[in-house]
Amino acid sequence: MNVIVDLCVVPLGVGVSLSPYIAACEKVLTEAGLKVALHAYGTNIEGEWDAVFAAIKRCHEVVHEMGAPRISTTVKLGTRTDRAQSMEDKVKSVQAKM
Amino acid sequence: MNVIVDLCVVPLGVGVSLSPYIAACEKVLTEAGLKVALHAYGTNIEGEWDAVFAAIKRCHEVVHEMGAPRISTTVKLGTRTDRAQSMEDKVKSVQAKM
Amino acid sequence: MNVIVDLCVVPLGVGVSLSPYIAACEKVLTEAGLKVALHAYGTNIEGEWDAVFAAIKRCHEVVHEMGAPRISTTVKLGTRTDRAQSMEDKVKSVQAKM
Amino acid sequence: MNVIVDLCVVPLGVGVSLSPYIAACEKVLTEAGLKVALHAYGTNIEGEWDAVFAAIKRCHEVVHEMGAPRISTTVKLGTRTDRAQSMEDKVKSVQAKM
Repeated sequence: MNVIVDLCVVPLGVGVSLSPYIAACEKVLTEAGLKVALHAYGTNIEGEWDAVFAAIKRCHEVVHEMGAPRISTTVKLGTRTDRAQSMEDKVKSVQAKM
Repeated sequence: MNVIVDLCVVPLGVGVSLSPYIAACEKVLTEAGLKVALHAYGTNIEGEWDAVFAAIKRCHEVVHEMGAPRISTTVKLGTRTDRAQSMEDKVKSVQAKM
Repeated sequence: MNVIVDLCVVPLGVGVSLSPYIAACEKVLTEAGLKVALHAYGTNIEGEWDAVFAAIKRCHEVVHEMGAPRISTTVKLGTRTDRAQSMEDKVKSVQAKM
Repeated sequence: MNVIVDLCVVPLGVGVSLSPYIAACEKVLTEAGLKVALHAYGTNIEGEWDAVFAAIKRCHEVVHEMGAPRISTTVKLGTRTDRAQSMEDKVKSVQAKM
């Protein structure tokens, strides 16, 4: 099952500068071979369900190992059985109607 | 790694009445032996990471099998390494300060 | 326009104990006369759109005044024009199918 | 109070093709003079709190007017008092650490 995800990892107890933790997550996701696109409030990810969620789990492990005692993450995830759709398809589909 | 999750599964392409799909997800989660608490905009879940995410995957499979061609789900998930905390602890901790 | 909201306010830069901030938000919401129900990963709110979002803005102001330099909040919000539906209706509707 | 938002509007009861509704929301947001950036699972928005939330309300009104009887929207919203930060700053801040 293919899934398109929007991931936003928020480490707590490490002050207000979160970018080193987000950068570490980006590394985890790309090293997992997933298609990723960083935006201003999260990261779009596309891939097989199990690979995507294994990588998200690894993000939590890595961010804890970096010293964050607590993490609150928000994930949006979309699956569809009617047709294949990539992250680019989704953006183009909206832009075509604008 | 223990995780507390807030899960909100939104089936698309099946009209506006979503409760049969949500009820099916509740069944999946409880049959997986997870601790769950339904609220007005989602379901709190507590359990081991792998068990929780296997159940969430199963929810998507079941909702697709019920006829939903598309699903958009929102998940919040919290982990912490500083101390154990249950769903009840979280609520009590806030209520104690009110 | 009536709205049912799930609100999760996450103050950053204040350590890992967030309950005093969440309790302050509960106070803001109830003093605004909104119907609220706290759960383990947020708060359900029901009310008129403008009243609900004025209260959410007030939550951010209050949490900043309490000393949090940064806040990352997640909100789910549902509106419908086909029929009236309360928070209790939503829960009962699912439970009736379980 | 400046806010950075990630908005994801999901119309229900209109089938599986949501792009016309999302395109209409993009129009609302840009006509409101807000800075917006569409991605594969939502739209980043930057602006003054009141202007941003007035536009989000207008999105719900427009999507209902287009025929959607029900809408479930997810919003992430960040405010900070320690320093000004734009959407571009947030992305660059992560990329600088990668």
